[in-house]
Amino acid sequence: MGYAVGVDVGGTSVKLGIVNADGEIVETWEIPTRTEDEGKNILPDIAQSVKDRIREKGISSDVIGTGIGLPGPVDDDGVIRKAVNLHWERTFNAAEELSELLGGMKVRAGNDADVAALGEYWKGAGRDFGDMVMVTLGTGIGGGIIHHGKIYAGTTGAGGEIGHICLDPNEKIRCNCGNAGCFEQYASATGIVRLTKEELEASGEDSLLRNTEVTAKALWDAVRDGDRLAIRVAERFGFYLGWGLSIIAGVVNPEVFVLGGGVSKAGDIIIPYVRKYFDEHTFHACRDAQIVIATLGNSAGLLGAAKMVLD
Amino acid sequence: MGYAVGVDVGGTSVKLGIVNADGEIVETWEIPTRTEDEGKNILPDIAQSVKDRIREKGISSDVIGTGIGLPGPVDDDGVIRKAVNLHWERTFNAAEELSELLGGMKVRAGNDADVAALGEYWKGAGRDFGDMVMVTLGTGIGGGIIHHGKIYAGTTGAGGEIGHICLDPNEKIRCNCGNAGCFEQYASATGIVRLTKEELEASGEDSLLRNTEVTAKALWDAVRDGDRLAIRVAERFGFYLGWGLSIIAGVVNPEVFVLGGGVSKAGDIIIPYVRKYFDEHTFHACRDAQIVIATLGNSAGLLGAAKMVLD
Repeated sequence: MGYAVGVDVGGTSVKLGIVNADGEIVETWEIPTRTEDEGKNILPDIAQSVKDRIREKGISSDVIGTGIGLPGPVDDDGVIRKAVNLHWERTFNAAEELSELLGGMKVRAGNDADVAALGEYWKGAGRDFGDMVMVTLGTGIGGGIIHHGKIYAGTTGAGGEIGHICLDPNEKIRCNCGNAGCFEQYASATGIVRLTKEELEASGEDSLLRNTEVTAKALWDAVRDGDRLAIRVAERFGFYLGWGLSIIAGVVNPEVFVLGGGVSKAGDIIIPYVRKYFDEHTFHACRDAQIVIATLGNSAGLLGAAKMVLD
Repeated sequence: MGYAVGVDVGGTSVKLGIVNADGEIVETWEIPTRTEDEGKNILPDIAQSVKDRIREKGISSDVIGTGIGLPGPVDDDGVIRKAVNLHWERTFNAAEELSELLGGMKVRAGNDADVAALGEYWKGAGRDFGDMVMVTLGTGIGGGIIHHGKIYAGTTGAGGEIGHICLDPNEKIRCNCGNAGCFEQYASATGIVRLTKEELEASGEDSLLRNTEVTAKALWDAVRDGDRLAIRVAERFGFYLGWGLSIIAGVVNPEVFVLGGGVSKAGDIIIPYVRKYFDEHTFHACRDAQIVIATLGNSAGLLGAAKMVLD
């Protein structure tokens, strides 16, 4: 049986895993991400760790290849343009470079959000669907488009990077990206905190969210407890997320949206708030799209990375 | 040399053409679109006309297949879901049905806007680019996405149907689609007329656009003549089109936008108005996309239809 190595590179650690062709994770391990010296050790460290592990397990000749998810825009050829969290400033072909370090092994590289989307498509919440859009609701909003079973990387590797589509051109507060009115200013975990604070300031109403740390988790816990102010925030969040998804549906007409990231941990309670506004604003021909919660958590990246080379 | 037949079906006439593998149109002709009896004669009429013509020309054995663009959502398999202008109410596989009528000939079907996009990609304004989005600015806004050289049809054939993405969820005036705030309510020919009338009513200023029929053409002619009110309308149109394209860029990250349809006949004068707001609202990783004017006019549909079977 063939195996693939899946690699998910983050700013502090690299998750690695051996995955078989059925999508079963046989083994996982981690190594630190050494970002010093412009991150020049990161790929060599990964290569060494992969070689050591597959030799140890005696499966070197059964490994078909290595797939790697990277925190930056990666195009179809594996070229990455800058990865701030890895201290990579140059544009280079990460797939080719890792392949050389692995003695010519087949290597595919992708953007981490795209790769996680492929994982959810293969073995997670997207597995019974066709074209899919994954939306990762964390500090920001990440995303990945799966079309005909493959990652839609786009021209510069920014396909599905939906966090910075402009929903409100009149917004005065700047996004980290330099623009203003970005999707992630409203519908991310950060957006939830912002909307909650606005609501707390605008009303004198009692709420479980007063005099406590405002987080996305606290918001959904309060919604579950029937807190009226929290429910108003959930409506506003649902409006922004539902409206944003409606726009994406109008462009790429997916069969399913898979919601992942920290905010999605609240579970199905968020779906009706999103669905209501999605249905209101989506063009009828695209309105049948399902909206579901991701199921793989942190394994999505490993699995998607492995899938890139198993295809 | 192999030939393909390209067919572009409209509500009143069907344009047909014989195209060689180099994309040269060898011959074109038209037949009426018989929409009576729920349009049941349309495909048989086309099949008969194609058979007659290629027999006449003695090229029956050189024809690789027939591609057909249809005014409705068509998925990858050639299934069309309703085509109002053809009086087609049923969902059926138009490619299979036309193929049977043509004695088993290879047939591919696509949405007309998608097919025109493929034509521009093959032989028109998109020919030197990779991933492309065509935006057809007519009475409404149509669109087509070309990804890796192929039409991106989407789950229900509505991929790239960007005219109904919601730009303003607070809009009170309804769009024909039943929603409100749709892209095409602002940035189509109809949108230009609306924006012009709003500007004429809001100001008492002299303008070439007063006491004359307001059309998209009249607007751009007035802009060319330096009419200040017209220039303000052009700015507002540019804002809506540029903002809308910025959102699409953030989803699918194309290398080029090709603007077609009636409004695009004004030519390059519209580009700076659009570019200004596109640059302002587009995520930096997607901002390098070019914005150009379509070059093929009515031939785009024929060529794109032919290209579907030549691939």
